[in-house]
Amino acid sequence: MKFVIIGGDAAGMSAASRVKRTMPEMDVIVLEKTDDVSYSACGMPYNIADANRDMNDLVVRTADVFRKKQGIDLLTGYHVKSIDTKNRIVSGTVRHNRERFRFFYDRLLIATGGRPTIPAGSGFDLPGVVALKNLKDGRIIKAHIREHTVKKAVIVGMGYIGMEMAEALRERNIDVEMVKPGPDLLPWMARELARVVNQELEANRVKLHLGCEIKGIDKTADCLHIVCNDRTLTAEMVLVAIGIEPNSELAAEAGLETGVGNAIAVNHQMQTSDERIYAAGDCADAYHVVTGQKTWIPLALRANRAGWAAADNVCGKETRLEGVAGTAVFKVFNLEVARTGLSLEESHRFGFEPVEVTIKSRSRAHAHPGAETIWVNLIGDKKSGQLLGAQMVGCEGVAHRINAAAVALHNRMSVAAFSQTDLAYAPPFGPVWDPLLTAANQLLKKLS
Amino acid sequence: MKFVIIGGDAAGMSAASRVKRTMPEMDVIVLEKTDDVSYSACGMPYNIADANRDMNDLVVRTADVFRKKQGIDLLTGYHVKSIDTKNRIVSGTVRHNRERFRFFYDRLLIATGGRPTIPAGSGFDLPGVVALKNLKDGRIIKAHIREHTVKKAVIVGMGYIGMEMAEALRERNIDVEMVKPGPDLLPWMARELARVVNQELEANRVKLHLGCEIKGIDKTADCLHIVCNDRTLTAEMVLVAIGIEPNSELAAEAGLETGVGNAIAVNHQMQTSDERIYAAGDCADAYHVVTGQKTWIPLALRANRAGWAAADNVCGKETRLEGVAGTAVFKVFNLEVARTGLSLEESHRFGFEPVEVTIKSRSRAHAHPGAETIWVNLIGDKKSGQLLGAQMVGCEGVAHRINAAAVALHNRMSVAAFSQTDLAYAPPFGPVWDPLLTAANQLLKKLS
Repeated sequence: MKFVIIGGDAAGMSAASRVKRTMPEMDVIVLEKTDDVSYSACGMPYNIADANRDMNDLVVRTADVFRKKQGIDLLTGYHVKSIDTKNRIVSGTVRHNRERFRFFYDRLLIATGGRPTIPAGSGFDLPGVVALKNLKDGRIIKAHIREHTVKKAVIVGMGYIGMEMAEALRERNIDVEMVKPGPDLLPWMARELARVVNQELEANRVKLHLGCEIKGIDKTADCLHIVCNDRTLTAEMVLVAIGIEPNSELAAEAGLETGVGNAIAVNHQMQTSDERIYAAGDCADAYHVVTGQKTWIPLALRANRAGWAAADNVCGKETRLEGVAGTAVFKVFNLEVARTGLSLEESHRFGFEPVEVTIKSRSRAHAHPGAETIWVNLIGDKKSGQLLGAQMVGCEGVAHRINAAAVALHNRMSVAAFSQTDLAYAPPFGPVWDPLLTAANQLLKKLS
Repeated sequence: MKFVIIGGDAAGMSAASRVKRTMPEMDVIVLEKTDDVSYSACGMPYNIADANRDMNDLVVRTADVFRKKQGIDLLTGYHVKSIDTKNRIVSGTVRHNRERFRFFYDRLLIATGGRPTIPAGSGFDLPGVVALKNLKDGRIIKAHIREHTVKKAVIVGMGYIGMEMAEALRERNIDVEMVKPGPDLLPWMARELARVVNQELEANRVKLHLGCEIKGIDKTADCLHIVCNDRTLTAEMVLVAIGIEPNSELAAEAGLETGVGNAIAVNHQMQTSDERIYAAGDCADAYHVVTGQKTWIPLALRANRAGWAAADNVCGKETRLEGVAGTAVFKVFNLEVARTGLSLEESHRFGFEPVEVTIKSRSRAHAHPGAETIWVNLIGDKKSGQLLGAQMVGCEGVAHRINAAAVALHNRMSVAAFSQTDLAYAPPFGPVWDPLLTAANQLLKKLS
C-alpha cells in the first residue's frame, strides 16, 4: 500500500514515523515544499532572542534520519500543485530542477499546515517586512537583524506569536512597538486579565498602538514607515503576526470539503470528505469538546496527535479523536498566560448562558515568601451548570495549572463537581484552595 | 439552634465561619484546647527555616477577629473530655483555671485533628525530642535550636514532614540525619522516582539510615543518642515525624463508629454514626474517588472542604462530598514531588490489575534552555483500562501538573481518554507532548 503525505512538519512527519513503526512494509512518501522537516516551530522566538544560537538547533530530526533510519521516502523541495482524487494522483513540481512529478496513492494525508495572514494594503512585500512561520522565515529575521543592525521593530498584530516576538526582540535590545486595528488587546480574554498583560508589555517598554488602521508600508533608505489612519510608525523591521490561515486551497481545489476558518473538514478519524484522504495539523479542523461542534484552533499538540490518529487509521487500527479544548499557554516577559475552553463571547455564540467570575489569588501560601498574584477567570453555563472555560495570568504557577481545567472540560464537568476536585497543596506552590478552586467556589455562587 | 465545634483549626474554623456567613443568627461555639486557632500548619517548616521569622506570621486570622468580627463564640484553652450523645452535652475542663464546663448542642462538629505518632521505646519524652503538629511545637523547636545552638539533628521518619524539616534544618546550617525502620524511602513511590528523591537528599548532605530499628533515646549533657539495633546516632535535637494518627478517642468513647486508620467514620455528608454529630478534618475518614471505598488521607484542603460541607449540612443546605483522590505535593530542596490516586501496592490491594510505566521527560521543549528532567510514573488497570494513579518528581513543572491527573481520577477516566486530553504547550513550559501524555501513551501500549 502507498501512503503519500503532503507536508513534512509536525502532523506529516508524526504520521510518517508512526506508520513506519506499525507497518514497516508500507510505502511512505512525504512531499515537502521547503527544505526543512521536523523542527520546533514554537521555539523560533526563543531562538531569535539569542543572536548566538543557530536556527538549526530547532531541528528535532534531520531528513537523513527519516530517510535512512526510518525508511521514509522523504522528498524535500517537492511542491504539490494538485490532487486528482478520481485517479488518486498527486502532482506538482520539484523546486530545484523545475521537473514535474506525479505520485499514485492508496491513502493520502494532507498536512500542509498554515501560513501567516498578510493584511491588505501595499508594502507588505518590501524587504524587511517579515513573518514567522517556518525556519526559513526565522533565518531571514535573524539575518535582517544582523545585517541591518535593527534598533527598532514594529509588530503588526498582538497575538501569541506577536507577544513572544516582542519579548525576543526586547531581549536583543531592539525597541518594539505593536500595532493593530482592533480596540482590545487579546479580545478573547477577560478585560481584567488583558490589562495585566498590557501592563507587563508596557513595563518592558513595548509600546502598544490599539485601534490603528494600517494603510500600508513605505520604504525610505533603511527605514520602513507603517502608515496608519492617524499615525505613522517607523522601524528597520516590520513583523506581520496578525494570525494564520490554513493551507487548504489544494484540498478545496480537489473538491474536498472545507469548513470553519476555511480549514479542511475532517471527521473524528481525520478523514476528509474523501475517505481515502486524511488531513491533519494546522490545515484541518477539529471538534471542540465543550461545544461538540467544529472549530479551528491550529496548535502543535493537536497536529502531532492528529498525525498519529491518521496514521493509525491508515494502518487499520481504528482511532477516534474526541477533539480539542483549545488549551493554550504563552509566556510574555515574566507573565504566564493560559486559557482553555470557551471565551465569554464564544460561550454566547454557541448558545450557552455564560456567567463569569474573575478572582485574584496567590501563587504560594499565606505567609510563604515570594508569592505572586494569579488572576483567574472562570466561565460556567447558568442553564446546565457546566464549566465552559478558564483563563489565567500570573508570574508563576499558571502554565500547568490550566491543565486541570482542560481535563475538566474534556469530561464536561459541572462547576460544582470541579470545585470538589482534590488538587495538590503545599505552601511553596499555592494556597490551600488552589486559585482554580477559589474561582470555582465564587462562580458557583453566581450560578445558583 | 446551637452548633458546637470541638477544635479550632482548619476544619473547625472553616465550619464556624461558614455557618456564621449563612445563618448569622445561629449560636456557634468553638472549643479549642490550645491557644492557637486558624494558622497555616503546613507553613511551619518554612517558618522554622528562617530564624528571624515569628511563628505568629502563620496565623491567618486571630481569635479576636473570629470573636468580634464574625460573632463566633470561640473559647481557647477549653479541653473537651467527653460527649454525652444521649443528652447532647459536651463537657471538659478549662486549662487556665481547671474549672469544668458543659455545653448543650443541637449539632456537633468534631474537628479534633490528628497528632504525631510517637514510636514505642524509651526516651521519646526527653527534652530536645520534638514533634511538629501545632504552633506550640513550632515555637518549641525554634526555641530549642536557638537556646541549644543545635548543630546536628536526627529526624525519625522520612515522610513529607520529615523531608520538609530536613530542608528547613539544612537552611539553618544544621547537619541532618534521617532514620527509619523500613527498608525503603517513600515506600508508596515507584522505585525509580524514590531514587531521585534519595539522591536529592544526599546531594544536600542529608544522611539516610534506612532499615534501622530504633530502640530508644538516651541523653547525656546536651546530647541525645538515638540507639538503633546496629548503630547509635547522636544529635542535639530529635524530630519525630513518622506520621500522624487521628484524635478520634473522644468520638470512639462516645460510641461513634471509627474505621480506616482509626479515623472517625463519616458519610458523604460528613455525618458520623450519630446523625447530629459531624466530623471533619484530620480526625475523620473520606471516600476515595478511585476505589469508592473509605480511606484516611489527612490533608489540609480536605479539612477545609469538609468543614464547609459540615457547615452547609448543619444549615440545611444539603451538601455531598464525593471524596478525595489523595493528591499531594511536597518540596524537598530543589525537587518537587507529587502524587495522586493509588500507588501500585494500593492498586493491588483494592483488587485492580495494575500495570505501571515510568518515563523520563523534560520540563521545557526540545532546544529550550534550562530544561530539567521530569520523571512520571503512571498506573492503569489492565481489566478496565482505568487510570489509577500518577506520581511525578522533578525540579520544575511537577507541582501543578499533577492536578490534571487528579481531575482525570475524579472522572474515572480511562488511560486512553486521558491520553487524548488537550494540555497546554509552549516551549518554556514543557514538550509538545506533556510528560503526563507521554506516560499515558506508553502505558496504553502496556494495557492493550
